[in-house]
Amino acid sequence: MSKIDDSFFEHSSVAIAGASAEYNIGHAFVQCLQDAGFQGPIYPLNPAGGEVRGLKVYRHIADIPGTVDYVISCIPARFTPQLVKDSAAKGARIVSFFTAGYSESGRSEGRDLELELLRVAQATDVRLLGPNCLGLYCPRIGLSFAADFPKEAGNVGFIGQSGGNAIYLIRAAGHRGVRFSKAVSYGNACDVDECDLLEYFATDNETEVVAAYIEGVKDGRRFRRVLRDLCALKPVVILKGGYTTAGAVAASSHTGSLAGTGESWEGLLNQAGAVRVYSLDEMADMLVTFSYMVPPRGRRAVICGSNGGFSVLTADDYIRAGFELPQLAPREQADLLELVAKFSSTDAGMMLRNPFDITNVTSPEGHHAIMRSLMANPGFDLLVAQVSISNSAWPFAESPYVYWPDMFLDSLLRAQRDVGKPAAVILHSICSAGEFERMARLREKCQKAGLPVYDSIPKAALAMDRFLRYHERRRRQHAETG
Amino acid sequence: MSKIDDSFFEHSSVAIAGASAEYNIGHAFVQCLQDAGFQGPIYPLNPAGGEVRGLKVYRHIADIPGTVDYVISCIPARFTPQLVKDSAAKGARIVSFFTAGYSESGRSEGRDLELELLRVAQATDVRLLGPNCLGLYCPRIGLSFAADFPKEAGNVGFIGQSGGNAIYLIRAAGHRGVRFSKAVSYGNACDVDECDLLEYFATDNETEVVAAYIEGVKDGRRFRRVLRDLCALKPVVILKGGYTTAGAVAASSHTGSLAGTGESWEGLLNQAGAVRVYSLDEMADMLVTFSYMVPPRGRRAVICGSNGGFSVLTADDYIRAGFELPQLAPREQADLLELVAKFSSTDAGMMLRNPFDITNVTSPEGHHAIMRSLMANPGFDLLVAQVSISNSAWPFAESPYVYWPDMFLDSLLRAQRDVGKPAAVILHSICSAGEFERMARLREKCQKAGLPVYDSIPKAALAMDRFLRYHERRRRQHAETG
Repeated sequence: MSKIDDSFFEHSSVAIAGASAEYNIGHAFVQCLQDAGFQGPIYPLNPAGGEVRGLKVYRHIADIPGTVDYVISCIPARFTPQLVKDSAAKGARIVSFFTAGYSESGRSEGRDLELELLRVAQATDVRLLGPNCLGLYCPRIGLSFAADFPKEAGNVGFIGQSGGNAIYLIRAAGHRGVRFSKAVSYGNACDVDECDLLEYFATDNETEVVAAYIEGVKDGRRFRRVLRDLCALKPVVILKGGYTTAGAVAASSHTGSLAGTGESWEGLLNQAGAVRVYSLDEMADMLVTFSYMVPPRGRRAVICGSNGGFSVLTADDYIRAGFELPQLAPREQADLLELVAKFSSTDAGMMLRNPFDITNVTSPEGHHAIMRSLMANPGFDLLVAQVSISNSAWPFAESPYVYWPDMFLDSLLRAQRDVGKPAAVILHSICSAGEFERMARLREKCQKAGLPVYDSIPKAALAMDRFLRYHERRRRQHAETG
Repeated sequence: MSKIDDSFFEHSSVAIAGASAEYNIGHAFVQCLQDAGFQGPIYPLNPAGGEVRGLKVYRHIADIPGTVDYVISCIPARFTPQLVKDSAAKGARIVSFFTAGYSESGRSEGRDLELELLRVAQATDVRLLGPNCLGLYCPRIGLSFAADFPKEAGNVGFIGQSGGNAIYLIRAAGHRGVRFSKAVSYGNACDVDECDLLEYFATDNETEVVAAYIEGVKDGRRFRRVLRDLCALKPVVILKGGYTTAGAVAASSHTGSLAGTGESWEGLLNQAGAVRVYSLDEMADMLVTFSYMVPPRGRRAVICGSNGGFSVLTADDYIRAGFELPQLAPREQADLLELVAKFSSTDAGMMLRNPFDITNVTSPEGHHAIMRSLMANPGFDLLVAQVSISNSAWPFAESPYVYWPDMFLDSLLRAQRDVGKPAAVILHSICSAGEFERMARLREKCQKAGLPVYDSIPKAALAMDRFLRYHERRRRQHAETG
């Protein structure tokens, strides 16, 4: 049984131990909660008293007038066993520890202190999160550990053993349109651990996709069972940190984890049916895919976009990732040329075979007609649109022409609405902050229309291959079990 | 013998056929040359006459008063044989064709027209570049096909069969501090081809590193010989477009290339000793590496940076790429802890083993002392510094603290100057245009100090592994031959 249920995430008040009027980490947590729009009272705790960001500072948790559900510790490690006792006495449900200096330090004092925390907690009803972590992100109630995380809730549950990695993953995926039900930075996992959290996500109706950054597990057998059960219900994306020997050393000094060897993880994840990734960016790619991609019926892709050279590279990358790029039948090919002739005086400099490069078609009607015709073709299961951001303005940056990617993407979205075939968009090749901004604007347009957007051709091909493998495996399993 | 020598790149005047007062591609070429600072006269050609960007338009090339060295064709394909004749009569050395609609169209008219161009040219001294290309970039004399390429010349020679890919590669590598001697977008290669260009680079004193994006070669035996000879002299980075069957179809409709299978290219490139890459971003990574990285004596890396989770992932990526991450000897470890104690009241939340995470050291003196000590350690051959851009401001974006990456990188550069050991910097994890801008500022600082900068941990590890393989191979060859 999982140690946790919904009450682990549902808090009406938060106390932050160690927040001070001068900017420190506790102060920053107060700021995060204020900016994230936490609705309940926020209580800074500090023996010095005073005020933090307009809030009265309490000298002791017992002095707080109301109830306290969730306590965030930013005080030195040696004071934390007492904080747990006091929090339990106040009726708090969880204490989460930004505080570090426990088992991850590799020193016996640190290990002893972590055991003491656990002993103190076990005599009470309080649950511990961490230590050496950032705690909870629950956008529905405005709980957050970064001021700029999405305020809107979604269907992705994430757990991360590293706080820094959790921040980047949520932020990066958030910018790309992924929304979270709950996310947890869980650090050393002395009490609540990855198994408890994954078990919870299996039962949580708000969570439809699960992702985890894990450095080590304490009970391998339980983890295997929990993961298998979860994978049977929901897609699970796993990034295993410390899968090499040197990485394992690092993991042990980071979160006190026993990291386990690469070999055993490979088999374990594969057997359970988890989607394994090797970086946080690959994880964000998978979350974008599971959030936005409609599973295509097969692997027959049609590629359409700008620039002949990038079209060639896209074809290579998608073939390498296991897709097929069928050609049009001769009759269909003739029809397409006729269509292009209507919208362009010449087909010079265009590639009118799969992959299609329609850079030189410069009317929205032309783009729409071509992409609609390609999407409607039953010989293709999905359309991949690729647009080079840096190149697309060449040489017309100062020209009176409409910016090509806008025209192309507007037409793609229209064609996709008309036909309804799965489609993905790659907005790649960015050299400057200005180009990044341009990409972000185009990306938002596609996200609003419900399409997955990637920033690299090979990474898009990799993510889509993993997504298809996931669905192919499920189809096989359903076929086998009847 | 190569068909070309220095005179292929040295032009004192340029004519652009098809430039018009209204914005069109010829107009854009005029703009590129003006913005790139071309010193000689620029002659727009157009039967309509008039003016383009303040320049008199000549109706016919024969009307131009001075000599014309280099002609850029932006006129319809059917007029181009005559343009070649007229250019030859005027004494031009090269005609370069933006014009497309030749062999790449897959139609016999196109193939015939390309053959006719060649026949016309062979009766004269004029050399053809393309067709279906962007031509020459030669920063020393202000020749360019994009207005924003680096104006400063360098030591990298690049040839690209795709114009779009050439633009992106030069722009992307340019932003990352790579400087070019000469670059050529050479398209269908009906006359001057990749072999001619690579042979030239072998003899060119301005070129010390060579990179090529190639879709197909016409004479495989010659290519093998030319590449082998070039690789014996200079590092050569190759991206083969169209190495899958679908990619080959695309290459043929893009530049009329016979692309050849993946297998044969693998052997060919490997035998010659070329560095093979699979994307333009990987190519830019290699050019940054060859331009900025001092070859380390071995593979014993020390990793230092911010965020424990990213430190774990960096360790995994570097081990996977074939590096070693040795640990300090017990005595050295004790010395380091003593050093850290001087600059930080606690080592909680830091990882003081390789990979080192010194996020919680917040003084420049501390950073400098630690990195100087690590670099000076004879047990390490190189230092890899990794900084997460997105995370490093957390949660202190609004705080009075100095921005951590500035402090860290300033100290790193100082330590590197003191010790002189090879070092590389990874500025990764960017979520927004603002973060991109911050990264670009930090990157410039490192580039000015002569260090290679990467934007992704796994891609940095991959590029550095390829760089080391290149040097390991050369050392083996030198050992064998004497």
